[in-house]
Amino acid sequence: ADMAAGKAKATSVCAACHGQNGVAQIPTYPNLAGQNEQYLVMALKAYKNKQRTGGQAAIMQGQAAALSDEDIANVAAYFSSLPAGGK
Amino acid sequence: ADMAAGKAKATSVCAACHGQNGVAQIPTYPNLAGQNEQYLVMALKAYKNKQRTGGQAAIMQGQAAALSDEDIANVAAYFSSLPAGGK
Repeated sequence: ADMAAGKAKATSVCAACHGQNGVAQIPTYPNLAGQNEQYLVMALKAYKNKQRTGGQAAIMQGQAAALSDEDIANVAAYFSSLPAGGK
Repeated sequence: ADMAAGKAKATSVCAACHGQNGVAQIPTYPNLAGQNEQYLVMALKAYKNKQRTGGQAAIMQGQAAALSDEDIANVAAYFSSLPAGGK
């Protein structure tokens, strides 16, 4: 994965809801910092494929639709690399 | 939420995959320690309602089906209370 590209995408797109440090500012949104990379890839692909519905999934379906598989790999690697809890 | 009941359920049911400390031992599974409580409730209900599919969702559909709404509230509160990253 391209960590620099992941950081660029994460900070420009994902951070609005999931936090610059991967800690969400909104309690219904998940923290991503330190999350398992493979899980993040799987979750993003499930949103992109509209396999995840319910809750706030519609928002993530739209966001993930704009990500290529390469983008997904990159942002997953980036958020996984951040310290859990934002510390 | 009943934290003691949440801990009992979490350690007996959820921990096999998500870790006693909320840090998953399996890279395709998410860490839950320190995750936002409201997000965990929403995610568990989405699995229970079979709104989350794809990836490993079938496993969680089955697990969540066995949880009452009270169980969900309790385990969400418990995992959210654990330190992110398991530290």
